[in-house]
Amino acid sequence: MSASVDERHVAAGAVVRELIDRQDICTALAAYCRLADLNRPEEQVAVFTEDCRVSYAGPGRWIEGRTALVESLRRALAAYSATSHVLGLPEIDFLPESARAVVSTPVHAWHRRRDGGPDFLLYGRYDDEWRRTDEGWRLAVREFRTAGATGRDEAALNPLGRAR
Amino acid sequence: MSASVDERHVAAGAVVRELIDRQDICTALAAYCRLADLNRPEEQVAVFTEDCRVSYAGPGRWIEGRTALVESLRRALAAYSATSHVLGLPEIDFLPESARAVVSTPVHAWHRRRDGGPDFLLYGRYDDEWRRTDEGWRLAVREFRTAGATGRDEAALNPLGRAR
Amino acid sequence: MSASVDERHVAAGAVVRELIDRQDICTALAAYCRLADLNRPEEQVAVFTEDCRVSYAGPGRWIEGRTALVESLRRALAAYSATSHVLGLPEIDFLPESARAVVSTPVHAWHRRRDGGPDFLLYGRYDDEWRRTDEGWRLAVREFRTAGATGRDEAALNPLGRAR
Repeated sequence: MSASVDERHVAAGAVVRELIDRQDICTALAAYCRLADLNRPEEQVAVFTEDCRVSYAGPGRWIEGRTALVESLRRALAAYSATSHVLGLPEIDFLPESARAVVSTPVHAWHRRRDGGPDFLLYGRYDDEWRRTDEGWRLAVREFRTAGATGRDEAALNPLGRAR
Repeated sequence: MSASVDERHVAAGAVVRELIDRQDICTALAAYCRLADLNRPEEQVAVFTEDCRVSYAGPGRWIEGRTALVESLRRALAAYSATSHVLGLPEIDFLPESARAVVSTPVHAWHRRRDGGPDFLLYGRYDDEWRRTDEGWRLAVREFRTAGATGRDEAALNPLGRAR
Repeated sequence: MSASVDERHVAAGAVVRELIDRQDICTALAAYCRLADLNRPEEQVAVFTEDCRVSYAGPGRWIEGRTALVESLRRALAAYSATSHVLGLPEIDFLPESARAVVSTPVHAWHRRRDGGPDFLLYGRYDDEWRRTDEGWRLAVREFRTAGATGRDEAALNPLGRAR
């Protein structure tokens, strides 16, 4: 059994605490993907703060709060009979007060459509702000940015911002 | 040169020990994939305990022990002229006695067939039990679960268990 | 804000230092990919030492030094309108003097060509030597080895070295 978050933070100095924080954020990043692939949006939103802000489709279009998010995730996942997300190594930067972290994580995601259309392969990056809460690290802001996609029109998705 | 497992465990408290254990498991997860892609099944089985149990194809069908496993891996790898496995961020939970860990790791794997058939792309997850041994962390139980595949019939593989 | 490298190294013993070194190398591995996907070769070369040696295309063909490398990266990236790299879990081994590390990291990379040709999917592995410098860990030697590719002739790339 993992030591509880409290036990670990009392025992560890600031240096070790940051290593644990990184580990906890990585674990939560992974849980988000596992729960997406298992189609469990109700559990998936528990990775987020209550007042989270999330943007998947289109700059300036934000989903606000867990209640709106669970509906959005449910609808998005329902279009597929299977998905598989793999996250690459992340970059994690802690902000001065240590209770927030800016995290950028690449992702490759495969989607099999229910409607029999071609597989949808999505290549992109989650640009996040994570916040330390009493229940652990939670996603406060997530912006998905798309490098590109095959099998689906990507024009509606946030662009990665690649230099030309 | 990495400090030996013993040196590191004596020096480190329980908090740091768990961080090192996580690191050691991640390294062994990666070695399994490297050795698969290099087609070295004899070295690949060294990642497992002698009495390991492994299931790739079909619920309830278990390969038991290293001797059976090396034969199975050799046969499976021989069907391909090239493979490439990428593991996403894992989730690692230590069991109370600390000598065992439950680990779930997503994987995307590309396979080029020797018979000239279409590439086989496999999307899934390794659900593992790792055990701390005198030689380091070893895989005691591995169940591969499939989100989906292209280029090969996936019906024989363990399903991921996605909610409908 | 992350503690500075100096602060962290003074505070931490050798065991924790190795954990931080692993973390720093993983972060730099990830930055290389992010900057490739953003098409920022000038920033990408900052991940390398001034006297780096890099081989992507063909055994024995080395790009030497940052100045040559930035030209090479610029040219390579210009062939694409979008790319996406995901790194799998790495294996990191520190050499005795602790200032160098041998690192092997699998990668899946998607490339969309500017010329309208088919997407180029690259499956392989970075075999690296990292060096600790006053500015942090830097890539001193990188050899990219190819398991295989689709959408582009792979004959010119370094082979992975899979056993037959």
